Amino acid sequence: MLGGAVCDERTGRQAYEVGRRIALGGAVLVCGGGGGVMSEAARGAAGEGGRTVGILPAADAAGSPPNPHVELPIFTGLGQARNLVVVLSAAAAIAVGGGWGTLSEIALALKHRIPVVTLSSWRLALPDGRAEPLLTEARDPVHAVELALAAAGGVGR
Amino acid sequence: MLGGAVCDERTGRQAYEVGRRIALGGAVLVCGGGGGVMSEAARGAAGEGGRTVGILPAADAAGSPPNPHVELPIFTGLGQARNLVVVLSAAAAIAVGGGWGTLSEIALALKHRIPVVTLSSWRLALPDGRAEPLLTEARDPVHAVELALAAAGGVGR
Amino acid sequence: MLGGAVCDERTGRQAYEVGRRIALGGAVLVCGGGGGVMSEAARGAAGEGGRTVGILPAADAAGSPPNPHVELPIFTGLGQARNLVVVLSAAAAIAVGGGWGTLSEIALALKHRIPVVTLSSWRLALPDGRAEPLLTEARDPVHAVELALAAAGGVGR
Amino acid sequence: MLGGAVCDERTGRQAYEVGRRIALGGAVLVCGGGGGVMSEAARGAAGEGGRTVGILPAADAAGSPPNPHVELPIFTGLGQARNLVVVLSAAAAIAVGGGWGTLSEIALALKHRIPVVTLSSWRLALPDGRAEPLLTEARDPVHAVELALAAAGGVGR
Repeated sequence: MLGGAVCDERTGRQAYEVGRRIALGGAVLVCGGGGGVMSEAARGAAGEGGRTVGILPAADAAGSPPNPHVELPIFTGLGQARNLVVVLSAAAAIAVGGGWGTLSEIALALKHRIPVVTLSSWRLALPDGRAEPLLTEARDPVHAVELALAAAGGVGR
Repeated sequence: MLGGAVCDERTGRQAYEVGRRIALGGAVLVCGGGGGVMSEAARGAAGEGGRTVGILPAADAAGSPPNPHVELPIFTGLGQARNLVVVLSAAAAIAVGGGWGTLSEIALALKHRIPVVTLSSWRLALPDGRAEPLLTEARDPVHAVELALAAAGGVGR
Repeated sequence: MLGGAVCDERTGRQAYEVGRRIALGGAVLVCGGGGGVMSEAARGAAGEGGRTVGILPAADAAGSPPNPHVELPIFTGLGQARNLVVVLSAAAAIAVGGGWGTLSEIALALKHRIPVVTLSSWRLALPDGRAEPLLTEARDPVHAVELALAAAGGVGR
Repeated sequence: MLGGAVCDERTGRQAYEVGRRIALGGAVLVCGGGGGVMSEAARGAAGEGGRTVGILPAADAAGSPPNPHVELPIFTGLGQARNLVVVLSAAAAIAVGGGWGTLSEIALALKHRIPVVTLSSWRLALPDGRAEPLLTEARDPVHAVELALAAAGGVGR
């Protein structure tokens, strides 16, 4: 689950529902561990008894406090290089909303051929006009999690 | 839990018992996710129903296959820089046996003021002869986990 | 200088000219050290007596051989997390052509508020429609380097 | 050149002389870019017209100001994970003085089979009593640089 530390109310509701559906689908939610989209998604997953992992930028909780819905915080001390760890630890990624950090995660995921589903997020086309088969846009949170679980199964990570 | 991918039989038995005691102590076992000491410790923890996290050097399971006792693999793609993530995600570290990778983890932990307990591992004294209060040597696996759980509680990470 | 390891002939010519102009402008060329756009830009800079730095993904030259125009290779062993090091070491970034790796660099640069100039590269608009003042599109290589040198001076990194 | 940000006067003089000899030997000085041993070594190298590279922990000069003798600062944003980049970019490493950060660099270098020369620094023996052929202790700065240049040539990095 990729997304920024600040989000509007509608994006937050979408993130919450995505987290809930990930837990109901039996998957582990991996996110950046911070606020905004990350916190809402973790809250949704934790509320359904799902497992939540937060991969944080700073070296300790003083530097980057995990949101209260993260069950397992992983401190990296790597700053934004932790974005790579977030995407590599997922079998498929769902990006909700997002700024530049989220875009870097989408790009790093696709560089590593990890499927990405976007929801109210960046719309991207390769500069040469080709389509990227691993990148799909979801209509709503239910659709996003369906696409991601199918993609994760297909990749078999 | 810090330790190398290759170990002799005695060190393996110690790692297994350390893993078992970590689980019985109600703590999560975080390790590098590979073989040797990491695998034995994870096997010990998993056998008692404990939680096990493996923070792996490669970008995917093809590059660095997690040992079969790792419940939650975190792929980093960072090579040996992942050693920093292993130590920062622990409230206290136990080093069992070990080569240069393990020594780098001990040093990174102490650089970040994370307590380290050693067992059949490196014996270190600061070059200037001062003692390092956060570094202690355990007699056996039971002692190692007692020391680590006490240190983890004291630090409150 | 951001760009991929594979590029078509026209993009290669643009990268070469960008490298040449960076050297003529008295700036150091920092790139990912590999082939394609990175190699052409380094060739252009080195041909004018400019300084070239290559920040490479693997731990040694066997893993990621620097292109022959890199004067100072920095091996990181960090895989794609090295993209962060490439952008942070630049006062301004020029992206020529590009795939997902290049997009991750553009995004990481802007996340850190480092100005980015694009040339035959990704066209990006923030999802909410706002403009990003630190991102500009160049007409040609000369324009790209002019914009980047001006931006680098303005930021004072 | 590995070493800590704080050092006593004698260690500082040794670092300065090591830097000077590296430059006179025609090699590039790569260090962590900070104060103490790093600054003294860079001052020594720069004074002889040598090239100096500083690989810094923070994302920008505000976070980790390079010492004034660093000609080429590389900002990583990786915290102590930048220690890996420092050692991998060297053909051989000289450790002068040092605390836990320096020890992590010595260990990471040897993990990657990069030769290490120590001077007034950690004395290490493998826990099993074996000798490490890539680790040697120098008598003085001149000896340290002789050993390192010979080792660098032998490795051919």
